Amino acid sequence: RLQERLEPLHPADISQVLEELDADEAKYVLAQLDHETGAEIISNLETETRRRFLRNFSSEELAAYMYHIDSDDAADILNEQPIQVREEIIAHIDDPKVASDVLELLRYEEDRAGGLMAKELVKANVNWSIRQCIEEIRRQAEEVERLYSVYVVDDRDKLLGRVSLKRIVLANDRARVADIYEPDVIAIESYRDAEEVAEIMRRYDLEAIPVINVQGKLLGRITIDDVVDVITEQAEKDQQIMSGLTETPEDDDSVWSLSRARLPWLLIGMMGGLLGARFIGVFEDDLTVIPAMAFFIPLITATGGNVGIQSSTVVVQSLANRSALGDSFWGRMLKVLLVALVNALVISMVVFGFVFISESIKMAFVVAIALFSVVMLASLMGTLTPLALDHFGINPAVASGPFITTANDLLGLAVYFSVAHLLYQL
Amino acid sequence: RLQERLEPLHPADISQVLEELDADEAKYVLAQLDHETGAEIISNLETETRRRFLRNFSSEELAAYMYHIDSDDAADILNEQPIQVREEIIAHIDDPKVASDVLELLRYEEDRAGGLMAKELVKANVNWSIRQCIEEIRRQAEEVERLYSVYVVDDRDKLLGRVSLKRIVLANDRARVADIYEPDVIAIESYRDAEEVAEIMRRYDLEAIPVINVQGKLLGRITIDDVVDVITEQAEKDQQIMSGLTETPEDDDSVWSLSRARLPWLLIGMMGGLLGARFIGVFEDDLTVIPAMAFFIPLITATGGNVGIQSSTVVVQSLANRSALGDSFWGRMLKVLLVALVNALVISMVVFGFVFISESIKMAFVVAIALFSVVMLASLMGTLTPLALDHFGINPAVASGPFITTANDLLGLAVYFSVAHLLYQL
Ligand SMILES: [Mg+2]
Ligand SMILES: [Mg+2]
Ligand SMILES: [Mg+2]
Ligand SMILES: [Mg+2]
Ligand SMILES: [Mg+2]
Ligand SMILES: [Mg+2]
Ligand SMILES: [Mg+2]
Ligand SMILES: [Mg+2]
Ligand SMILES: [Mg+2]
Ligand SMILES: [Mg+2]
Ligand SMILES: [Mg+2]
Ligand SMILES: [Mg+2]
Ligand SMILES: [Mg+2]
Repeated sequence: RLQERLEPLHPADISQVLEELDADEAKYVLAQLDHETGAEIISNLETETRRRFLRNFSSEELAAYMYHIDSDDAADILNEQPIQVREEIIAHIDDPKVASDVLELLRYEEDRAGGLMAKELVKANVNWSIRQCIEEIRRQAEEVERLYSVYVVDDRDKLLGRVSLKRIVLANDRARVADIYEPDVIAIESYRDAEEVAEIMRRYDLEAIPVINVQGKLLGRITIDDVVDVITEQAEKDQQIMSGLTETPEDDDSVWSLSRARLPWLLIGMMGGLLGARFIGVFEDDLTVIPAMAFFIPLITATGGNVGIQSSTVVVQSLANRSALGDSFWGRMLKVLLVALVNALVISMVVFGFVFISESIKMAFVVAIALFSVVMLASLMGTLTPLALDHFGINPAVASGPFITTANDLLGLAVYFSVAHLLYQL
Repeated sequence: RLQERLEPLHPADISQVLEELDADEAKYVLAQLDHETGAEIISNLETETRRRFLRNFSSEELAAYMYHIDSDDAADILNEQPIQVREEIIAHIDDPKVASDVLELLRYEEDRAGGLMAKELVKANVNWSIRQCIEEIRRQAEEVERLYSVYVVDDRDKLLGRVSLKRIVLANDRARVADIYEPDVIAIESYRDAEEVAEIMRRYDLEAIPVINVQGKLLGRITIDDVVDVITEQAEKDQQIMSGLTETPEDDDSVWSLSRARLPWLLIGMMGGLLGARFIGVFEDDLTVIPAMAFFIPLITATGGNVGIQSSTVVVQSLANRSALGDSFWGRMLKVLLVALVNALVISMVVFGFVFISESIKMAFVVAIALFSVVMLASLMGTLTPLALDHFGINPAVASGPFITTANDLLGLAVYFSVAHLLYQL
């Protein structure tokens, strides 16, 4: 009955249903389905759910699924297991090709091209005929689900080029691979960053990219569906970094690990706040005389924070998006300063009016001049900080979060109280 | 000479080189290359650069490129032109098929499935033989560059299913389409959101998706490369929203338009700051007696802001990522409150210690209690605001930027000064 209700569903949808179940229920559902469907469902689960479910299976049961899971996903799943379980599963895989593929992929780091590639691909020797090529496709048909191109190699497996499936469909059976292959194929070395893979596939609109070693030997293939996941996860991580979250909370959603993801930046912000308190304390005497000076502290810090975050985000995005880096450094800085100038003038003029009406002309001057300086400085800092971080190889997105807010709070307080102190002396 | 240097480059790379040139230089470079390469280069330019360059071409010259540009990109480019230029270009397109394809695509909105689709695809009647199918592929080979599947339709062009190219390669020439096509193809209606297209293609790992009208008639095809661009742009826009930037600044990078993208949220933040000033003003008498009360204003507002942004980002991401919505609403709220409790306790205890040493035990109690309440309230607000916005159909990412910071500044001040006022009465 359950089987009948699940059959019309796509495995990706069954995975989503399973996310809501406990490990026993999930095992029961998977037992109703054949290993091939089960394998696809398991591949599509979220990491944490999968870890929870698979604890309920024996190594032998898991090995049975491994035959049907694409090698890239199989390696990922094994990587999620404790080392002993991993070894046991591999020991239970009887097919030497499946076992060796997975063992090879386990060697690569997750965030490298090698960690994204699968061993499933169709390759043809440059000396083959198209007929032999088609025979090879037939032989691999079961294993290689998504086929876009046949990769062309020499006798030592060095990648020479590719023949698109379309070309194979249209070619004469007796044509030779050598005559019709495209030699200038875009490939990527296994040690390159996952982000580089994404950038190249996006730029050249690729649906798959062959992975080679430093000698140019064909090792595997990365398909766009996995890179789409990389791009999505990367965007989520950048958002988390911008918001001052240090770990991906989905991986383990206990209260303690959720708190721990938030505490570091909260504590850094707190340190900034305590430093700010110290700093304002220096001007205690001024405050006693003019308590109204305290009124505008939140205005100053909030504006500095907002300006700083806006500026740093613009820079972080233009760093991610090299094409936007058209202008020269000084040309860009000039523009940043002009934009800051316009905003600083607008905001400080509006504020001048309000403070003039509600307090005094002296206070209006103090707040407007301080605000003007804060907008200019926060723009400059928001622009230079990510550039500096990027220069030192740190992810510049760090600069568009609590880091820049905290720094700007202190900067803003310094400017505000200095201006106030000086102007009230007059 | 220039031609020789450009020839080995990929059109996407030439586009990037062109981004740095002025319109005359770009025209000169394009004149050296054939129309097909030129068309690809033009498709790959950034919108703003393209608009700048194409002003330099006559409608006739532009029409000549249109034959070689994929229909989806051709429609986008025409959409970027002033209406009169657009009409002139279309009038200069002699091939009625090219003109009608583009005219049809111009009808769809940019952010819908129809706005992403291209007319280039290969379809086969269900009654055809595979040989006829291959003939059709041959006929379309020039036009349809990326071919993954042949779409199967009935006599009235209703989409019935698909045959993968792999299957065609492996099929017997005399087999019939009816015998080998897969009937359960995933398709999308032309009016659906671009984001929905991205979600479906990501979920089912598709490299292309057929687009149909409400009657199920096959209209076009969306390929993953264009959806990758949608995903990337969406992520950038969300980051901009989170940072309080209201427009994509790349579209026109004059100082004034860059300023205008930043001003709205700066002005809202400023209003918040002025309201905060009013609010603190209520406690002017307290401040005169205990000026130290002012010291901790930045600590309170900064912590509230950091906590609020963290909480809202977690919610915004789980809303984007439906799978994470496993727990029930009350289960999640409980967890949110527990996480907030842990963080509130840690932070307020640390701050208690610092303030006790630097000020007094009374001040330490005031600041610690206020901070504790601010963390709890900011968590709650950061969690509920995006849920409420989402409920009313507003992009919840708005809640993870200056909006939540401004609201939290005011909330924090209210809590802090109320607590201080009450405790100092004792
Ligand atoms: Mg498979
Ligand atoms: Mg994977
Ligand atoms: Mg991997
Ligand atoms: Mg692209
Ligand atoms: Mg493209
Ligand atoms: Mg894969
Ligand atoms: Mg073309
Ligand atoms: Mg497009
Ligand atoms: Mg379009
Ligand atoms: Mg996917
Ligand atoms: Mg997948
Ligand atoms: Mg396209
Ligand atoms: Mg702030």
